[in-house]
Amino acid sequence: MSTAVCLVSGGLDSCVAAAEAGAKGLSLAFLHVTYGQLTESRERRAFESIADHYGIVQRLVADLDYLGRIGGSALTDRSVALPEGDLERTDIPLSYVPFRNGNLLSIAASWAESLGAEFIYVGAVEEDSSGYPDCRQEFFDTFGQLIDSGTRPETKLEIVTPLIRLTKKEIVLRGLDLDAPLGLTWSCYRNEDVACGRCDSCLLRLRGFREAGVVDPLPYDEQL
Amino acid sequence: MSTAVCLVSGGLDSCVAAAEAGAKGLSLAFLHVTYGQLTESRERRAFESIADHYGIVQRLVADLDYLGRIGGSALTDRSVALPEGDLERTDIPLSYVPFRNGNLLSIAASWAESLGAEFIYVGAVEEDSSGYPDCRQEFFDTFGQLIDSGTRPETKLEIVTPLIRLTKKEIVLRGLDLDAPLGLTWSCYRNEDVACGRCDSCLLRLRGFREAGVVDPLPYDEQL
Repeated sequence: MSTAVCLVSGGLDSCVAAAEAGAKGLSLAFLHVTYGQLTESRERRAFESIADHYGIVQRLVADLDYLGRIGGSALTDRSVALPEGDLERTDIPLSYVPFRNGNLLSIAASWAESLGAEFIYVGAVEEDSSGYPDCRQEFFDTFGQLIDSGTRPETKLEIVTPLIRLTKKEIVLRGLDLDAPLGLTWSCYRNEDVACGRCDSCLLRLRGFREAGVVDPLPYDEQL
Repeated sequence: MSTAVCLVSGGLDSCVAAAEAGAKGLSLAFLHVTYGQLTESRERRAFESIADHYGIVQRLVADLDYLGRIGGSALTDRSVALPEGDLERTDIPLSYVPFRNGNLLSIAASWAESLGAEFIYVGAVEEDSSGYPDCRQEFFDTFGQLIDSGTRPETKLEIVTPLIRLTKKEIVLRGLDLDAPLGLTWSCYRNEDVACGRCDSCLLRLRGFREAGVVDPLPYDEQL
């Protein structure tokens, strides 16, 4: 049976991407990366819950504390205020962590080569996203070439981005189709108990559920 | 003044590569990565000594302990014996750490983007090396494309590999020309006090010094 390393942040998208890998009948290995982001422990808890749900034995949690020390992002630097979400904005938001996905995919590639896995599943979304440069299909295509040139000749690894062209609405519907445990996921950039409902990540998620005509099972700030 | 992030392992090659960056008049930021390799603390000490020598203020030490947990290499897995060196071997040696340089360059790219640096200096050697797939110029070229596609549009980062086509002999001679502190470097994969003189890394280094007609300042096992 082929193995897929799934990048599982604990958020909605990566949960649905992992569900896609499971639906292909692949053996799953779950990778979670913390990097000093504000909601690190809540995301870690979501990761473990999703992994428990799928009965995942192979789990790797990597701590990239240096990404927090590098700074340069409102997601990891406590001295930069996380701005209110704005889905109309077209520039790169302050929550962008410099080259974060390069780091995440490199760990995934190392682990996948060591396991003899054939796939890396990533829940990146290009169309209906926050506009991070390292979430575009072009980036993942180039990373695939990098893996080809930087691993053993016998290593054959494909990066799969099943959600890259989907809207959040479509991701919610796909997750429901696949019976993915959406209630175990966490998306808020700001809070760990009750989602704020106002950061970019909450706004995207809420719009997705609303457009899908489904109630988001997560608790939100009552002030909304 | 432009800044160069220099990957400095503590070994001979990265020391000479950093010296090349210094000779260009660039402001230097030194990055060191530990990943559970056998001689981790000795390499860290070499890194700090070289950084002290050059008066480097910007230093980042990243601990990739997950690479050790992933295993798959005699360099990090204590259950895999590090083989005696063999410079005639043409396959990929057991000391290969899966996709290690993808991880290292990703950290360098994150830090460089955050610093606004324009260059990443890497002491990789293709011609006269251990045959790791992630030490070839093709790999670094592809990584340059990856950085272009995965960072902010205004980020302009070039990966510089000044030693890629040099032999170890030429690297030693170049290091002497540049007055690089070769006596502060450490290359042995196996020991932390007296170099073993028998692992791949020692064999390559000793051959380089011998062919350059120079005595290696490091202490070696007297049994040699």
